[in-house]
Amino acid sequence: MRVYIQRYPVGVTMIGAQVAKIIESKNPDFPVGRRIVGYLGWRTHTIINPHRSSEYEFLSQKPTLVPDIGDLSPSLYLGILGMPGATAYFGLLEICKPKQGEVLVVSGAAGAVGSIVGQIGKHVFGLTVIGIAGSDEKCKWLVEELGFDHAINYKKDVEVALRKAVPKGIDCYFDNVGGDISSIVIYQMKPFGRVAVCGSISSYNADSSSLPKSTILQPSFVFNQLKMEGFVVTRWDNRFSEATKKNLQWIHEGKLRYRETITKGFDNMFDAFVGMLQGKSIGKAVVKV
Amino acid sequence: MRVYIQRYPVGVTMIGAQVAKIIESKNPDFPVGRRIVGYLGWRTHTIINPHRSSEYEFLSQKPTLVPDIGDLSPSLYLGILGMPGATAYFGLLEICKPKQGEVLVVSGAAGAVGSIVGQIGKHVFGLTVIGIAGSDEKCKWLVEELGFDHAINYKKDVEVALRKAVPKGIDCYFDNVGGDISSIVIYQMKPFGRVAVCGSISSYNADSSSLPKSTILQPSFVFNQLKMEGFVVTRWDNRFSEATKKNLQWIHEGKLRYRETITKGFDNMFDAFVGMLQGKSIGKAVVKV
Repeated sequence: MRVYIQRYPVGVTMIGAQVAKIIESKNPDFPVGRRIVGYLGWRTHTIINPHRSSEYEFLSQKPTLVPDIGDLSPSLYLGILGMPGATAYFGLLEICKPKQGEVLVVSGAAGAVGSIVGQIGKHVFGLTVIGIAGSDEKCKWLVEELGFDHAINYKKDVEVALRKAVPKGIDCYFDNVGGDISSIVIYQMKPFGRVAVCGSISSYNADSSSLPKSTILQPSFVFNQLKMEGFVVTRWDNRFSEATKKNLQWIHEGKLRYRETITKGFDNMFDAFVGMLQGKSIGKAVVKV
Repeated sequence: MRVYIQRYPVGVTMIGAQVAKIIESKNPDFPVGRRIVGYLGWRTHTIINPHRSSEYEFLSQKPTLVPDIGDLSPSLYLGILGMPGATAYFGLLEICKPKQGEVLVVSGAAGAVGSIVGQIGKHVFGLTVIGIAGSDEKCKWLVEELGFDHAINYKKDVEVALRKAVPKGIDCYFDNVGGDISSIVIYQMKPFGRVAVCGSISSYNADSSSLPKSTILQPSFVFNQLKMEGFVVTRWDNRFSEATKKNLQWIHEGKLRYRETITKGFDNMFDAFVGMLQGKSIGKAVVKV
């Protein structure tokens, strides 16, 4: 959101996905009382024609009806059953291409995407999974509740901790952060290792003319014949429902757990957003209006 | 050579490919008078059993007889018809996967590998080819003799020169150098661009605990969904002859030109090697003993 909004003029509604209840409708496909999920931005109320596309790319994705998922909260369509869940699913499957028994490292592991990546890796693919996160509390949650094999607090010595956890090296790295931590992980990868670059939160505060510098990656790429690929989940738009279906199935089978950090009140949106970037939330950050 | 030799104990014969004439033989498959090419290291004379493998990986590749190539120099089996030629061929085809009309940037473009990459890109695939090299003399050679579309002296402003040469961006980058120049190229790539990492000469002077830092790559990888892969040519050992055959054919068809920087005398080997790393040679650096 930080990065995308930079492309748009000041004054544009802040980008953001929303689950909203229909309170008035002239369209029989969208009846009053049902909920929709879509990129409606930061607003309490939206008047929208679901077939009209917007001049802003982030608003041009069409809203869709939220299916009935029983006792589960519709807010999951913002997280594990929505874009973050699909990002985790496709990024791991299609970019990391893990094989049973391999070693997976996930950075930003306690976030909305990272926490799902690690669990799919562990409980679906049978990988050894190491999470990197920003507090002991998050690390405890990853290991004790989500079943990660190890979790490393990046404020401690990641290089030494990683070498101790997986001395034989790393096959797959799901990268949400970029920067120095990623260089450390990449220099411990095995031959033919794969890196999926999903985000680069370590640089979101920098403007494009003053990006940070980190240890160069090319030597490790040559000697270990590594592969790295960046991706945006929209690449798999035509398979989006596959991810939602699988993630829902895995929730029901007890393979995936999730957590939401819920902030109440529209006026607290900004603080919730900045707090998320500062690492204060666990799992998906949701604002309840 | 700089990097591989670090793995071996002091006193080991320096690694290096050699074309040598057989002056004595007990093996009818290797008759006196014929030439062989192999990783014989820095020596004037070698006693070798072609079927015995060495304790050192770089010596364990078996030497092979040099075929008759008429008027062409057998030293080409050290360059365009040998490992550098195969590196250029497979790296471009299999990692960059270029499509006609795309834009290719090659760093280390006047070297043994880079000069072949650019020519295959230009004259076989019909790409727009930009070479990055270390002197105006090299740049002139790339454009005027090899047919590159543009050449940039990296001691000048690469960022501005690249933007001017290919304002619409870059599809493929064949990287021989790593470091800051590579970061500049990568930030000018188009969506779904591909980077083949062949070498990292900018870091060969650093030991592994003090590698240089450069602008981080992850933001460009996410936003443009780029792919980067490191490779070593031995990956295609079973297809090696395909590369030699194609490169020889393209020489005969006038599509590939080559240059050798020849130093005479075994005692000048060290100076020739250091001079090559300092950018003093053009094309393949060959020592004639």
